[in-house]
Amino acid sequence: MGSSEIRGSRPRIVLFGDSITEQSFRPGGWGAALADVYSRKADITIRGYGGYNTRWALHLLGHIFPSDGSAPPVAVTIFFGANDAALLGRNSHRQHVPLKEYKDNLRLIVQHLKESSPTILIVLITPPPIDEDGRMEFARSVYGDKAMKLPERTNEVTGLYAKECINLAAELQIPCINLWSKMQETEGWQKKFLSDGLHLTEEGNGAVFREVVRVFSEAGLNADSMPYDFPHHSVISGDNPEQAFL
Amino acid sequence: MGSSEIRGSRPRIVLFGDSITEQSFRPGGWGAALADVYSRKADITIRGYGGYNTRWALHLLGHIFPSDGSAPPVAVTIFFGANDAALLGRNSHRQHVPLKEYKDNLRLIVQHLKESSPTILIVLITPPPIDEDGRMEFARSVYGDKAMKLPERTNEVTGLYAKECINLAAELQIPCINLWSKMQETEGWQKKFLSDGLHLTEEGNGAVFREVVRVFSEAGLNADSMPYDFPHHSVISGDNPEQAFL
Repeated sequence: MGSSEIRGSRPRIVLFGDSITEQSFRPGGWGAALADVYSRKADITIRGYGGYNTRWALHLLGHIFPSDGSAPPVAVTIFFGANDAALLGRNSHRQHVPLKEYKDNLRLIVQHLKESSPTILIVLITPPPIDEDGRMEFARSVYGDKAMKLPERTNEVTGLYAKECINLAAELQIPCINLWSKMQETEGWQKKFLSDGLHLTEEGNGAVFREVVRVFSEAGLNADSMPYDFPHHSVISGDNPEQAFL
Repeated sequence: MGSSEIRGSRPRIVLFGDSITEQSFRPGGWGAALADVYSRKADITIRGYGGYNTRWALHLLGHIFPSDGSAPPVAVTIFFGANDAALLGRNSHRQHVPLKEYKDNLRLIVQHLKESSPTILIVLITPPPIDEDGRMEFARSVYGDKAMKLPERTNEVTGLYAKECINLAAELQIPCINLWSKMQETEGWQKKFLSDGLHLTEEGNGAVFREVVRVFSEAGLNADSMPYDFPHHSVISGDNPEQAFL
């Protein structure tokens, strides 16, 4: 399709996940950066739900991605696990989902999306690593003496969830961003990428953004090669603008 | 509607305009900031077209806002005029639209939207002021000796377009943000709010964002009083999550 041809509509990319997706339109956020890169080519829809685990996400599936297949998105990022990995017997135990169920739930989400559209691009994203010291510092800054005495998440356990996410992607042959490992390759990742030991700094958002763009591009969803929805202004004739819109 | 009730869908807010709308998801952008404020409550859709004037925007109307009234947005910002106000006989004359036609075109856009939905909230935004020195500096930085010798826009002429925008809003009794005047109330607006004499700095984006939130809120579209699409995670029972989603 030529870049000056009228398409009039845009494919939709949905970001489905927990708070790390919900907050992705804050300053420097990875969602906003995606919206800018796909400007005039695709719409980015945020479906991020702070605090949600995959068990609760299943209840949203049919609403967000109707089974009637009406206008399915071209691509979806699935970014859960940070809450599933909350430890039993600690502060956020209510959000805990057992490892096996986490993987099963992710599989159900992927299957539902594939049924809504056989050509949909699905990208799994593992939870980011956990900086346990950062979690404790954050808790103390908010709750003082009443703060939890042990972190409600550990990097080791979250790593197990990341591993299951990667395993599932391999089984289903869909792309996966191993954020848990990727971030830990950078020295000082604890403070560089994480603001409170869990959520992303601007640099952390930048890291997610670059990975998503890379994986989307490798899968053929490259903004540079996608057509504009309407002609670029430079091809509109001042005397005869109608022509560009025929 | 209670904040924990399931709605499942979100109203849509469309940002319709030129480059200043198109670029609103860049870092610090007013569009991304809106998306964050209305997070989990409304979807922000960008329909910004760099270089477009109101004459060309008319060709997009039926595509972006179908007349069949299917799922009309609850609110639209209309933010044109910066290109219409390009001067005849100068560098960007191709984009020039006469003052009277600018007002007529804006009226056609508003009428079209009102026909698509009688309850739609329409907010007109005037073009920002022009810093002519900033335009010239920018041209020299890009084109050197080949740069234009006179600015392609002046603040005075853009002010006339802003005035017609305000007049039309008064005639039609719809809200209007007088960005042209508002920005000039701040000392040093030329560099504080404008990056190249025309487009917005992060602070300029912040100014637009605050005005849009204020006008939306005054019109009853206040994020704080809008329901979530799905329950907040804190009201989901760990033992019996289904209940929250009934």
